[in-house]
Parts: sequence; C-alpha cells; structure tokens
Amino acid sequence: MIKYLTSLQKKKVREEERLYIIEGDKIIREFILSGVRLKLLISKPEFLSSLSAQLKEGIEESIPVSFEELKLVSTLRTPHNALALVGMDNEAPGPGAAGKGLSVALECVQDPGNLGTIIRAAAWFGIRNIFCSPDSVDVYNPKVIQASMGAIIHVKVFYTGLEEVLKNAASDGAIIYGTMLDGKSVYDSALQEPGIILMGNESKGISDRLAEYVTDRIMIPRFSDALYGIDSLNIGMAASVVFSEFARRKKA
Amino acid sequence: MIKYLTSLQKKKVREEERLYIIEGDKIIREFILSGVRLKLLISKPEFLSSLSAQLKEGIEESIPVSFEELKLVSTLRTPHNALALVGMDNEAPGPGAAGKGLSVALECVQDPGNLGTIIRAAAWFGIRNIFCSPDSVDVYNPKVIQASMGAIIHVKVFYTGLEEVLKNAASDGAIIYGTMLDGKSVYDSALQEPGIILMGNESKGISDRLAEYVTDRIMIPRFSDALYGIDSLNIGMAASVVFSEFARRKKA
Repeated sequence: MIKYLTSLQKKKVREEERLYIIEGDKIIREFILSGVRLKLLISKPEFLSSLSAQLKEGIEESIPVSFEELKLVSTLRTPHNALALVGMDNEAPGPGAAGKGLSVALECVQDPGNLGTIIRAAAWFGIRNIFCSPDSVDVYNPKVIQASMGAIIHVKVFYTGLEEVLKNAASDGAIIYGTMLDGKSVYDSALQEPGIILMGNESKGISDRLAEYVTDRIMIPRFSDALYGIDSLNIGMAASVVFSEFARRKKA
Repeated sequence: MIKYLTSLQKKKVREEERLYIIEGDKIIREFILSGVRLKLLISKPEFLSSLSAQLKEGIEESIPVSFEELKLVSTLRTPHNALALVGMDNEAPGPGAAGKGLSVALECVQDPGNLGTIIRAAAWFGIRNIFCSPDSVDVYNPKVIQASMGAIIHVKVFYTGLEEVLKNAASDGAIIYGTMLDGKSVYDSALQEPGIILMGNESKGISDRLAEYVTDRIMIPRFSDALYGIDSLNIGMAASVVFSEFARRKKA
C-alpha cells in the first residue's frame, strides 16, 4: 500500500490509475463538501471522527493510521492529519467553451506552485476554465493541489493545443488578452467578455507562435523606477492582479 | 569557509556577523546595479567575467569556484552561478516615516516565501517601508531574499512593535487599513495616503490587540459561491491585489 501510494507521485502512474492524491484537513474537507467522492481516506482516527455522518457517506474506504504511518506515504515534509485518493474527473470542455465568459490559457507554465496559485486565484475571481499547453506542469502533481488549496475542484483544467483553443475562441468573438511586457496597462485597457487571458512560460513568456493570436496586449505597470533586473512580477502574483482587475470591472 | 557560509543560514549568526547571503545571477546583478557593495562574491568564473569593469568595482573580494563547490555552500537545491555576502544595512526609519505616503505593516507573517512575495509586490507598486512585528520571519532568511527576487534592496523592512507604529501614524493622520475577512470591498473603499496597510498572520489574521487601531477594514471580494474551506487568498496574492488597487487609484 505504501509503495502504491508513493508511486502515485509519478504522473505516469497517476494517468494509468486515473487517481491522484490530496492531502491536508482543509483540502480534504473542501473536496467532500463539494460532493467529490474519496476512493480512500488515510487519516488519524480523530480526523475521521470529526466528520459528520453525511460527510462520511462520501468516503468509499478509510484506513486509520498513526502520524508515523502517515509520514511514510505523505508528499509533504510535515504531513497533515489526512491524505486521500480521488478519481480523475476530466470532462472535455463543451464546444465553444473557450469562446464564452472569461477563460485562462497557460503556455508551458512549469512551476507547480505557480499553477496552483493561478488555479486558486481563478477560483476566487470566478474563472471556471483553464487551458494549458501539453508541456505545462501536471495539474495532479501534489504540489499543484497543495498550492491551489483544493481550488482545483472548482476550476476545470484542460491540457490541449492552445493554437486551436485561441483560434476557435477568436472566431466566436472572444478577445485574446496576452500578458506581455510591451502591453498596455491593464488598468487602462478595455477588459471584455468573452475573453481569454493568455499567460506564458515563467522565463520565456508567450511564444511568437501564440503571440500571433493575441488581440490585446496587457501588462501591470510598475510604480517604481529603481528596479533593474526585476522586470516582472511572479506569474502567480500577476495572475492575481489581472484576474482581480477583470472581476472588478465586471462587477462595476 | 564552507562552514562559515553555511552558518550564515542561521539568523543568530547573521545578526552577529551583520552579513547575509544572496544567491543567483539575477539577484546579484540587481544588487550591484543598485549600488550595493558585495563583501564577497563566490561564483563560476564565467559569471565574474560577464560583469563590466564598473560593476566589478562594487565587489570587495571574489572567489572563483566550480559548480560542485557552489553546491556545498548554496542554500538552494540547484545552485545558480553565483552567491554573495552582503552587509546588513538597516537604517532606522526617520521619525514619522509611517505617517507619510503608503506603508505596510505585517503582524507575525511566518512563511519566508510569503514575506519575499510581499516585498516583491511592494517594490513593484512603489511602497518603500514595511514594518514587521518582531515575531515575523527574518527578512535575511535566504528563502525570503529568493522569493523577493532581490527586491529587498528597494524596500526597507523594519522589525518593531506595531502598536507604536500604528499609534504614531494615526496621530499623524494616517488611515490604518486592515485586511480582514469582514472588511469592505477594497474596490469600493476610499484608499488614501498617508496610509498603512496592516496584514495579519497567515492562519490567525490580525490580532484583536492590533485590530483596535484599524480605521478601515478592507477585503478582496470573492467572485464565486462554490468555495467552502477556501476562505481567503494566500497573503502574497492578497498583498499583490491590494497594493495594485492602491497604486491604480493613486495613478488615476
């Protein structure tokens, strides 16, 4: 069992088994409360007994363990009280999904913490669909789930060629917003729906190939002259600011 | 030398020596370009030779090393090309500093990545002073410097009792903004200077003791009904959004 669980830290195994690991009281609660079934819960007895009978119905099998046993299967340095196995539940986006409302497209985002942060920000600001290029970090990577704080269940993350997504969305009338250093201030840009916010790789940004589809280049202006090498915010921070600005306008 | 350098990963030793470590090409360049002198540069020969004669003048001593040698002293899993020692340069804030312009006050922020992110966001959005309660994580922790991407040289971070800071700033006419879950939407709040943005501990938020000084409670509204346990954004994301909103208003 230990070997099986640790093998799920590998993307290949996760995809074969169609299962992934979630960890931590808060995240597990978020999943059950949202109606996601747990295939297996491995937890200290206190955690299980803290759940209501109704919540327990969402758990197919559970194994009580000690803290020391949890340590053996945890993906974290200091494990929380519980860990669970959840089935992958990818639904292909319906036709034209990218051409409706506001979506996000990520090209080759590599850092699991960054993807998790972007998912958390998307969930907070009401964005439901994220399209990732196939060379982006895997959404079921335990570090992504951790950084997303479980928000992954409220946002659909699809891996697919972005050219197709952007082309189809544009033909449905969506504006393609690209976050680029030479863009126009996001505060002064018209932000409209349907729209797609395209963000590029952490160090290389958006590729020339995808930049062709961008209709509106946007950036977050810097309010300081003293910075030299710091030419951008981290992508998770940038996503938070840009999503916030879209949400603020929509509300207003 | 190896032992000496690794000992600087401890706060106590850093404070005795009045020295701290910075690491990575980009961060080191940012420091030298900003006029900070390096006491010691430990780098691959390529890095040193990539610097102009003028930049080299800012380096007091340099030791060329191999990648394997760098690994022995690096604070990172995968070291960059260079690492340097820098003298601590704390200047006490002038009287009334907290009562002028916009400052940030952090109560017991614990995670080094979070403090680094907040410093990076502050530098980007033109905030120059951060006051931290004495029980906050140390700004010279290598993980803080790393997450700040070197922005620490553009923002002054002071450790001091926050009651005094808030009290004095308020008597100078500053508004004390507290980020709190029961606050008013930051988008709908009057955001003014002089002001202090007070943010609390990652899990406990702002203490009752400091909440007494808050004049305007602000929060970032959530644009989704589906979230259960996720009751806030991460503090680094929240700081980015709040600083952005202050900067946007100031500009407008």
